[in-house]
Amino acid sequence: MLELGVCYYPEQWPREKWEQDANRMVELGLAWVRIGEFAWARIEPSPGEFHWEWLDEAIDVLGGAGLKVILGTPTAAPPKWLVDRHPDILPVDARGVVRKFGARRHYCFSSRRYREEATRITEAMAARYGENAYVHAWQTDNEYGDHDTIYSYSDEALRAFRLWLAERYETVDELNRAWGTSFWAMHYNSFDEVELPNNLVEEPSPTHIVDFIRFSSDQVKSFNRAQVDIIRAHSPGRPVTHNFMSQNTDFDHHKVGEDIDIASWDVYPMGGLLNGRLAVEDKAHYMRVGDPDQPAFNHDLYRSVGRGRVWVMEQQPGPVNWAAHNQSPADGMVRLWTWLAYAHGVDMVSYFRWRQVPFAQEQFHAGLLLPNSEADQGYLEVAQVAEEMKGLPKGERRDKAQVAILLDYNSRWATRALPQGRSYSAAATALDWYSTVSRLGVDVDFIGQHSDLDGYQLVLAPDLVIADAAFVERLAKSGAKVLFGARSGSKTEDMHIPEGLPPGPLSALIDVSIARVESLPDFHKETVLYGNETFEAGVWRETIRTSEMVLATFDGEYRNGAPALVGNDKARYLATAARGALLQKVIDDALGWAGVESLSDLGDLRVTRRGRLRFAFNFGKTTAEVPAPEAATFHVGGRRLAPVGVAIWTE
Amino acid sequence: MLELGVCYYPEQWPREKWEQDANRMVELGLAWVRIGEFAWARIEPSPGEFHWEWLDEAIDVLGGAGLKVILGTPTAAPPKWLVDRHPDILPVDARGVVRKFGARRHYCFSSRRYREEATRITEAMAARYGENAYVHAWQTDNEYGDHDTIYSYSDEALRAFRLWLAERYETVDELNRAWGTSFWAMHYNSFDEVELPNNLVEEPSPTHIVDFIRFSSDQVKSFNRAQVDIIRAHSPGRPVTHNFMSQNTDFDHHKVGEDIDIASWDVYPMGGLLNGRLAVEDKAHYMRVGDPDQPAFNHDLYRSVGRGRVWVMEQQPGPVNWAAHNQSPADGMVRLWTWLAYAHGVDMVSYFRWRQVPFAQEQFHAGLLLPNSEADQGYLEVAQVAEEMKGLPKGERRDKAQVAILLDYNSRWATRALPQGRSYSAAATALDWYSTVSRLGVDVDFIGQHSDLDGYQLVLAPDLVIADAAFVERLAKSGAKVLFGARSGSKTEDMHIPEGLPPGPLSALIDVSIARVESLPDFHKETVLYGNETFEAGVWRETIRTSEMVLATFDGEYRNGAPALVGNDKARYLATAARGALLQKVIDDALGWAGVESLSDLGDLRVTRRGRLRFAFNFGKTTAEVPAPEAATFHVGGRRLAPVGVAIWTE
Amino acid sequence: MLELGVCYYPEQWPREKWEQDANRMVELGLAWVRIGEFAWARIEPSPGEFHWEWLDEAIDVLGGAGLKVILGTPTAAPPKWLVDRHPDILPVDARGVVRKFGARRHYCFSSRRYREEATRITEAMAARYGENAYVHAWQTDNEYGDHDTIYSYSDEALRAFRLWLAERYETVDELNRAWGTSFWAMHYNSFDEVELPNNLVEEPSPTHIVDFIRFSSDQVKSFNRAQVDIIRAHSPGRPVTHNFMSQNTDFDHHKVGEDIDIASWDVYPMGGLLNGRLAVEDKAHYMRVGDPDQPAFNHDLYRSVGRGRVWVMEQQPGPVNWAAHNQSPADGMVRLWTWLAYAHGVDMVSYFRWRQVPFAQEQFHAGLLLPNSEADQGYLEVAQVAEEMKGLPKGERRDKAQVAILLDYNSRWATRALPQGRSYSAAATALDWYSTVSRLGVDVDFIGQHSDLDGYQLVLAPDLVIADAAFVERLAKSGAKVLFGARSGSKTEDMHIPEGLPPGPLSALIDVSIARVESLPDFHKETVLYGNETFEAGVWRETIRTSEMVLATFDGEYRNGAPALVGNDKARYLATAARGALLQKVIDDALGWAGVESLSDLGDLRVTRRGRLRFAFNFGKTTAEVPAPEAATFHVGGRRLAPVGVAIWTE
Ligand SMILES: [Zn+2]
Ligand SMILES: [Zn+2]
Ligand SMILES: [Zn+2]
Repeated sequence: MLELGVCYYPEQWPREKWEQDANRMVELGLAWVRIGEFAWARIEPSPGEFHWEWLDEAIDVLGGAGLKVILGTPTAAPPKWLVDRHPDILPVDARGVVRKFGARRHYCFSSRRYREEATRITEAMAARYGENAYVHAWQTDNEYGDHDTIYSYSDEALRAFRLWLAERYETVDELNRAWGTSFWAMHYNSFDEVELPNNLVEEPSPTHIVDFIRFSSDQVKSFNRAQVDIIRAHSPGRPVTHNFMSQNTDFDHHKVGEDIDIASWDVYPMGGLLNGRLAVEDKAHYMRVGDPDQPAFNHDLYRSVGRGRVWVMEQQPGPVNWAAHNQSPADGMVRLWTWLAYAHGVDMVSYFRWRQVPFAQEQFHAGLLLPNSEADQGYLEVAQVAEEMKGLPKGERRDKAQVAILLDYNSRWATRALPQGRSYSAAATALDWYSTVSRLGVDVDFIGQHSDLDGYQLVLAPDLVIADAAFVERLAKSGAKVLFGARSGSKTEDMHIPEGLPPGPLSALIDVSIARVESLPDFHKETVLYGNETFEAGVWRETIRTSEMVLATFDGEYRNGAPALVGNDKARYLATAARGALLQKVIDDALGWAGVESLSDLGDLRVTRRGRLRFAFNFGKTTAEVPAPEAATFHVGGRRLAPVGVAIWTE
Repeated sequence: MLELGVCYYPEQWPREKWEQDANRMVELGLAWVRIGEFAWARIEPSPGEFHWEWLDEAIDVLGGAGLKVILGTPTAAPPKWLVDRHPDILPVDARGVVRKFGARRHYCFSSRRYREEATRITEAMAARYGENAYVHAWQTDNEYGDHDTIYSYSDEALRAFRLWLAERYETVDELNRAWGTSFWAMHYNSFDEVELPNNLVEEPSPTHIVDFIRFSSDQVKSFNRAQVDIIRAHSPGRPVTHNFMSQNTDFDHHKVGEDIDIASWDVYPMGGLLNGRLAVEDKAHYMRVGDPDQPAFNHDLYRSVGRGRVWVMEQQPGPVNWAAHNQSPADGMVRLWTWLAYAHGVDMVSYFRWRQVPFAQEQFHAGLLLPNSEADQGYLEVAQVAEEMKGLPKGERRDKAQVAILLDYNSRWATRALPQGRSYSAAATALDWYSTVSRLGVDVDFIGQHSDLDGYQLVLAPDLVIADAAFVERLAKSGAKVLFGARSGSKTEDMHIPEGLPPGPLSALIDVSIARVESLPDFHKETVLYGNETFEAGVWRETIRTSEMVLATFDGEYRNGAPALVGNDKARYLATAARGALLQKVIDDALGWAGVESLSDLGDLRVTRRGRLRFAFNFGKTTAEVPAPEAATFHVGGRRLAPVGVAIWTE
Repeated sequence: MLELGVCYYPEQWPREKWEQDANRMVELGLAWVRIGEFAWARIEPSPGEFHWEWLDEAIDVLGGAGLKVILGTPTAAPPKWLVDRHPDILPVDARGVVRKFGARRHYCFSSRRYREEATRITEAMAARYGENAYVHAWQTDNEYGDHDTIYSYSDEALRAFRLWLAERYETVDELNRAWGTSFWAMHYNSFDEVELPNNLVEEPSPTHIVDFIRFSSDQVKSFNRAQVDIIRAHSPGRPVTHNFMSQNTDFDHHKVGEDIDIASWDVYPMGGLLNGRLAVEDKAHYMRVGDPDQPAFNHDLYRSVGRGRVWVMEQQPGPVNWAAHNQSPADGMVRLWTWLAYAHGVDMVSYFRWRQVPFAQEQFHAGLLLPNSEADQGYLEVAQVAEEMKGLPKGERRDKAQVAILLDYNSRWATRALPQGRSYSAAATALDWYSTVSRLGVDVDFIGQHSDLDGYQLVLAPDLVIADAAFVERLAKSGAKVLFGARSGSKTEDMHIPEGLPPGPLSALIDVSIARVESLPDFHKETVLYGNETFEAGVWRETIRTSEMVLATFDGEYRNGAPALVGNDKARYLATAARGALLQKVIDDALGWAGVESLSDLGDLRVTRRGRLRFAFNFGKTTAEVPAPEAATFHVGGRRLAPVGVAIWTE
């Protein structure tokens, strides 16, 4: 069953508004309220001087009104007095400039001092509220990675990076081997000679880059883990979450996810559309509804990160403030996004924020209420969702899908370190693959290389650059067929080309060998002949040698007839970066090959299922027909679905 | 009567050329000569060692030839020895990098040391030349704000900013309230904790930004005022001016204008066109004549800044050197711009510069003379103006207009701090409004919120974001009708959303309430239905609630039928960023509503009046008919006006 | 006769591969192998501890197999221990940020310490291998100027710059005169007051900029010369080379060329195309063959730099890694580029690199072998070249051309310092002129102002901005006619406008006087009337006064009928930046005027000659007819030339 919630900042509003706010939340149908994550300066306004009374009271008021409190540790924004006492807390940007106090996330994950201080405030908060009857869950920090804060180039980061390298490689000779320092005389005589990979004359060794990313990712994991351990010690039985961000791959979310109970994420589709993968005409088409697949992609991804448990901690309730342009969503989209979340396995949707704040940085960010406390459009839509929810069957859980998409953070970092072509975007590629499957009406799960493969009929691996031997072995033994995108298996863990050429360990599944790769400028398109049809491809092309069946070929002046898609009974390999019609053809064929039932192209409609519940969402501009059987029982909406419409039925 | 002048640098030319130059200036019809503003190193080549003799002589030669000297204080370019002795004079850019000696404007307005030094040299110069019979006017410094020099991020600026904040807010709690530091734990325990708003992790509080701009603006005012006080003490009766720049809003020109006698500005329409608001096809159309409205806009603005007295201190005499491209103006444009200035109330036009200098940074900047002292095209056109002037009636002053445009610097800073949409440009909006009125043949005055409103029938407020209650009250009591653009009244002086929603205090004039705003990407256009016609709008849209008459509505998928323009007898409010045809329709209607007589769209022709004199200017590529009555007497040009033509008549 | 070679890095491969590699090189037909230029850390892994044994052995193995070794001094990449001991070795970028160790070229040419260290290692290497029987040539350092490393803004550079200025100007007054410091109070009282021209408030004096470039260029020359002197002392009779880069003008290659025996350069046409001068549709047309003229241009240029002796030290053997996109060349291009080099006078072509390296920064850079040692496409094409070579007449040398193009580095720096228009590119202009001559089937030599002019019938001077009086005198006395591009003669050595207006000293050859120049935005085109035809021109236009014959005029609204091309029997002057059809018309006419025989436009075909050998290369997409006489004897290819084809014949 879907629960609803909201983000609230009692420290920003007069005491006399709290009761009324709390009561209105309950009246609206909200069950949860998140507080506290930016309150450190209010809790501890000067060193060691704690003011808990206001927070005690806020929790009492909210809890007393019937709300379950999610309490955030306030470490995303240390107070000024702390930064002034310990300037080595501050992060340093890639140019080498200290990033100053005055906004948020002004800390370096490697600062020993900040780790002590973060522990101290978390300990104090957990000790005080761990057993509080109204505190039902915890959030660590806030949006790791926002404002490009995973990578810090401080002295503290350098110190920690050298230690991390010493632990990883044990001997500096091993580092020299992995980084390939026989190239360009980059040899190190000790770990203490290694520098951070910024402000170099030219790009560093890709292994240097990827190791710095891995190190930075590990710093996030250990920083987060320290808080989780404290909370669990003081607040047993309450789940701990962290609110991740859309499309961020600066650190390994799977690894941080291991240490929390529920993954949550923050849903802002309007800015996501403008910053996203789509061509400008598609952005215009979807301007007020967002990319139909980007929220669903993240729901499915974080469902995997949370090992089945996923929340939305922040849902855009109207126009916001942080994108280059901030258009209003269509009326109805707040409702649609809420149902979409539920359909994709989300159990709690919390809106950001209760009331639009009339001061400071986010005053153009809508709330459920206008600044003068009138209900805004989002409020009305939340009320509608709460009402509609009452009519639904309870207890439905999302089933395991037949199709899995592999998202491997390590591989993402590999192409970030060595893109080889400016137009290559692994993030866009993965979302394009997801979108293509979704338009064919097929549900997917995300997996990592650590994941269980049981039950999947088809694994899609759009960008598995660094393949684990163990994963390949499990894949071989599984019943799944697999489709590999270009660049798969092209790097080792050391960021080397595999011995015997790419795709390295994947050769166990398919006999291909990559003799040449090239990245293509945007003005150039290759042609692929697949069946009787020709398709455009671009961005990337590989020359492959194979004894497998050739399913499609390149057609044109350059190496005419060379294989573009090859395969056997187990695996297929795609030798170019496909989008649009070619990608749809490739994936549609792969679904059939794997025995996965699909629909014909849904266009702007999306359908999915959660247990017995079937959902349809119309992201288009015209009324659509829902693919429901004659006998379907509609709980929400109906067979004819207007734009921005939601239909929910059982069969 | 129009006087002419020129900028001259005796220190750059051999002594033996001075007499001949001076005599040729007089022969050409020039009355004024500006000198000295970059001469510090020549006056004081080493600490305390003054060489006045050359300047004495230069003034004697020029004055003796019959020219009135405008003497510039040389503070825009302190000498190297001074910078080396006191490196804290140097400004620091937003990245935190010291901006070094080697060009000009290399000083920080907050440097205490530089204020002392600027006072010392001004005092020395004013004491020496204050009563000189040939010195008829003074210029302080040169082009405040050029090369992005208003904002310095030095330690001296930080120190001064903290003092300025302490004075503004008195208590740090009041600062905390205004800046909204309960947001993101930004709380300050003392003014000494505040930092400058650069190199932050994310954007600072908008009030932090706006206060830093206000502080920086006040620093310019006090820096300038110190010089004016010294000059006035030593040189009574001589007007003091400063040469402002086109379209600069980095500091409050009205406030600096309070302290000087005449506002002057520097007119470079060719670069102004290329850097300006127009679409590329319009830039192509006007390539050799410039934006027809940008010079006039600034004449009118600085006439307001100078409380009626305005000069052109530098007029482009041919192609210049500083833009990305530097096209030649059409032959005739130097004359046209001179008459345009006079028509708009300018009493003195000085050309920059006498002779093209064959060395250093500006050697591609044309002069009236070529480097070899031959007359260039500009020289010939100035001679023509001087001749034409003789035939004109004397003593005409520009009358007060019926229409006023409000330009409020504080409001400009508000949208700079919180643009909310990258395409929103308050500067372009104001110039578009001005241009639209001008194409309808209507003269305007610029006003600030401090200005007298008597006699105006219509006030245009394209971007009055922060409205003073006192101004609103005076507006209410005045006889003027008023048209407000979008975003009007949307922020308080503290940069907060007004209580009870925007437009805050403007609600006293019109019953509208802004429930939602959105900024729109460039690829998206809204449609507005006004009368029977539809128009395109973009960039910005508001959802307003109103009990007033709805004059135009939005038409389309999103909130179809919502009001786009509403009004009553006193005020109208426009809920979108209009340009082109929509803006012309809105303003044409407003003129009629306010009883202001207008012409039909003049296209590339512009007409204006100064006392009894009527002027027409043809910025187009074909001959145009001048809208003069049958009985008109033409003093310059005639009824049929060729491209680049000027007509002057009385009726 | 053409010799072939390859770049090889024994330090990157297991010892057991060396023999096999060496034998395969010989088997392939290679005669040369370049090694050592990034081996410092392997040679001297800690201070003073030398490990020569591996290098001894590598030279023995390679030499023993029959290869001639080119030994590189390893100074392009000092080891980490050296940088840590002497951080003042590191260069500083224009922002003032130290550029760290971790890639290559991390040294400042002005570092006294690094000069000592570079001398020390060169001395050690030269002493050890100077007389080695297998070492047949030396290379100093590697690719001076790569990664923007000519200009360093370090304290060491500042110190050296001041000394250089003191030597150049002798008195600071002379510097003040040259830099024009009477402008903007930039006066210096001593050389020690001068700063480097970075991080200023506004652009510095152009003479300041150009002097910094000249200084930096001289630093490269003296740095290189020091190595050459050591090598020559220890290794008499072995030629010394340096491998220059394509299209780099950051230092004066002619001056460095004086100190070496053979000029070599590195040929990467695929990235050169994408970064180059062509319009996007031409880039698409030539995507897999590259700009047909850019490699030939550089062959001819470096033939001049090497006073007749030119090698290719690195030839792209397939797709590479460093451009924004890295497309594959068409199969056959490695062969074509090799023959093209030979045709243009190159005597040795070395491929970069032997085997693709599976680790570190360049792992996407193809080699002749794949990482697993299989032959890649390039290997096969080299084998074909080696075979074809056997059938050719031997001993042919390239003859002196009838047409010379002047490339003057000092002039390039002049327009870099004062471009006056962002679209003006001297580099593109020179390549366009070269390309136009080439399309007309005419061979050219490059010259500098120091070059002998004997025998040239036509000198093309596309951008001779700073003309030496001595050169002009020699030109006047020579039998050559000359075509000057716009801006010719427009600056003095001091970066001033010449007295008496441009073209300064060129007035001795042609009576023109430039009264006005303008730079034009890309959206604007001028029209030129030449004969009965009209042509487009853009970017730059001059107003010239002349008593010479007017060959073409500007046509249009601005100064209609003004001269666009004028001339007499000796010289022609072009008053605009011509490209495309206009440039072809201008140059075609000039060839006829100078009595140089030409062909009609060859389109995508290129022809050239080396002694008795005639060559044709087809860069197009269709088969072309080779312009060979009936009686021609074809040694390679034939009369009908397929795309990517090469024909070689004698007549
Ligand atoms: Zn505890
Ligand atoms: Zn005094
Ligand atoms: Zn020696």
